[in-house]
Amino acid sequence: MNLSIDKDRVARELDQLAAISEAPAPVVTRIVFTAADLRGRGFVKKLCEDSGLKIREDAVGNTFARWAGRQPELSAVGTGSHLDAIPNAGRFDGTVGVLGGLEAIRALARAGFQPRRTIELLIFTAEEPTRFGVGCLGSRLLSGALDGSAADRLKDREGKPLNGVRAEAGFHGSLETVRLPEAYYHAFVELHIEQGPLLEQKGIEIGIVTAIAAPASLRFWIEGEGGHAGAVLMLDRHDAFLAAAEIALYIESAAKTSGGEDTVGTTGVCDVFPGAINSIPSRVRLEADIRDIDLARRDRVLHNIEAASEQIAARRGVTVKTEILNADPPAKCDPLAIDMLTRACETHGAAHMRMISRAYHDSLFMSQVAPVAMLFIPCRGGVSHRPDEYSSPEAIAQGILILAETLARLAE
Amino acid sequence: MNLSIDKDRVARELDQLAAISEAPAPVVTRIVFTAADLRGRGFVKKLCEDSGLKIREDAVGNTFARWAGRQPELSAVGTGSHLDAIPNAGRFDGTVGVLGGLEAIRALARAGFQPRRTIELLIFTAEEPTRFGVGCLGSRLLSGALDGSAADRLKDREGKPLNGVRAEAGFHGSLETVRLPEAYYHAFVELHIEQGPLLEQKGIEIGIVTAIAAPASLRFWIEGEGGHAGAVLMLDRHDAFLAAAEIALYIESAAKTSGGEDTVGTTGVCDVFPGAINSIPSRVRLEADIRDIDLARRDRVLHNIEAASEQIAARRGVTVKTEILNADPPAKCDPLAIDMLTRACETHGAAHMRMISRAYHDSLFMSQVAPVAMLFIPCRGGVSHRPDEYSSPEAIAQGILILAETLARLAE
Repeated sequence: MNLSIDKDRVARELDQLAAISEAPAPVVTRIVFTAADLRGRGFVKKLCEDSGLKIREDAVGNTFARWAGRQPELSAVGTGSHLDAIPNAGRFDGTVGVLGGLEAIRALARAGFQPRRTIELLIFTAEEPTRFGVGCLGSRLLSGALDGSAADRLKDREGKPLNGVRAEAGFHGSLETVRLPEAYYHAFVELHIEQGPLLEQKGIEIGIVTAIAAPASLRFWIEGEGGHAGAVLMLDRHDAFLAAAEIALYIESAAKTSGGEDTVGTTGVCDVFPGAINSIPSRVRLEADIRDIDLARRDRVLHNIEAASEQIAARRGVTVKTEILNADPPAKCDPLAIDMLTRACETHGAAHMRMISRAYHDSLFMSQVAPVAMLFIPCRGGVSHRPDEYSSPEAIAQGILILAETLARLAE
Repeated sequence: MNLSIDKDRVARELDQLAAISEAPAPVVTRIVFTAADLRGRGFVKKLCEDSGLKIREDAVGNTFARWAGRQPELSAVGTGSHLDAIPNAGRFDGTVGVLGGLEAIRALARAGFQPRRTIELLIFTAEEPTRFGVGCLGSRLLSGALDGSAADRLKDREGKPLNGVRAEAGFHGSLETVRLPEAYYHAFVELHIEQGPLLEQKGIEIGIVTAIAAPASLRFWIEGEGGHAGAVLMLDRHDAFLAAAEIALYIESAAKTSGGEDTVGTTGVCDVFPGAINSIPSRVRLEADIRDIDLARRDRVLHNIEAASEQIAARRGVTVKTEILNADPPAKCDPLAIDMLTRACETHGAAHMRMISRAYHDSLFMSQVAPVAMLFIPCRGGVSHRPDEYSSPEAIAQGILILAETLARLAE
């Protein structure tokens, strides 16, 4: 089979997709179910249809573009990733797995390949937790890790429930229907940028993921006492923001002193109310993300953070309510799928290494319902979630080539 | 002269004004030059005109409602306060001085009083710093403490310059024309709620302000390095929010250890960019307010905060740019005006005490161009800048009575 990847076309399509953003270039911001997200999906769906794929969407907006196999009664092979992007993000996170998956299918078709099993390209809804506070919303529902009725009650920052927001975006029906039937996928393979520096540092083209780190996220609601910045003396204060500042610094120190360098803790959200220079903060919402490749260690850090935030709040005379938004176990990739990926690298002479994913991905949840493999390509400086995120057209094309080879092997 | 204050009418007018807000009751939010601010001004101007006062507005929107004296060539007596309100504020801050000043004039007119000097009721533009970062914008310009062209370059949070914002609100012309002619006012008297607990605790009706504390405000722009919350290890981070958290905690400790219990330091604004749970904060804007009744001590604290923020930034490998938004000297009220106020209290048998204002007021700047007196009335629990801010109709009426008596003495 003579596989050739059209790297210029993919680069052009990535550019066109990046221009569909809530913020001006080079920033990409596509929050789920905003106009930008819906336009981005529309752009990709059109490309899929132009390539002869059949589109289906489920009740939460997960999108499936189907290339029917010679034996469509067999379980399918899936690939794909996400299109949504956090505020001030770049153009490669997620999109490389979607547009790259599409190009892999086109390359197979151009090579005259006719799959025995159906191949499906997936666009997962809301991999990013920005809007509803929970990452991998679409794949959580597909895998059954999140219950449909619980999901419908999730609220965005403005207090709108998912139920109404998805209906406005045109996605109707019960979320209970989203869960995949048993053994729906024979295997699932995700192509993604590394979002870390290792491949670039070592000069290696393909990272073969063996496991995905265990992510957890926390939300703190801190309630203190407001008042006029001039009138309330220091000793009489119960400042919600100062308690939040201490909690954020504790999270940093808990991650640094966990006993393993792989523990990371990040406080990315701090909303201060009322947010006026001459008003003592009365309320703060803090959101933090804790990850580790070691589940027990991650859970120990989580526990310490909860206990410390209670102590900080008590000492300052404020209250803190802590919600664990999610605390997922790590995922292991499937040994046979890893082997298939390795052989694809060998066939095309691609330098490869095994590695762990510190970032989480829809594959984390897909691994609960299908054998999963995941491949990384290098990105400059390991930078991600920033406008200067970058992977070269050559690196992307190499990733697509290995993906196409793997899909062909899995679908045959 | 038989002065009688219509406390029910004032309470009703305060209620009506409170309903003109950007947020639903009981919250009052009226940021300068928003629709709510302009409607609030319109409501009060109508009341003034109904009482026969003549309205004039200057280029920044300071509003003067004039009751012509028998000798209009003499310098006038001024009273008034502000109508703008910070986010999530209450209904008495500022408004008591405006609607109370109007009722004082009406009471004098009802009593058959005809002033020798003109009496003017003032509505100052933007006493609150919420929108442009500088408090007392209107009175700063009236007093010449702020230069007109510098003021026009001030930008709001969205980057819009004052010049354009005031034009959209209908206030045109050069800001250089706002400055008052020399000796324009014979005296200026401001009625205000205490915004502190002392009068209530001591059961005293009227606070006679002898000095206004020295306020300063700072803005910090902290720039670190963003990145994916999963992918960047703790030791490689330059998190702008954690530097901000340390600076806020330092401000608290600097105020607490200044050597005087009157030093207060408040960090009321913390905007985190990009503000996503799984993204390391790359940029933070922090705004803080430092006050003291002792200028040297306040400036020492300011200096220490600037030095500490540089050290924190250097240790964390982030940069900090510090702007001093304002650093005003304390104001002394005029001994003769204080005496006049004291005699008004004695005439009406009002329990009174001398006190310092920790909150700042337009009187801080009016004191640079006129002899100033300021009187406080009790407010429940000392609470202000909150929806539960409260002064009783009786306390307000007593304040208006003393104000009316003082205005009559000053205008005669």
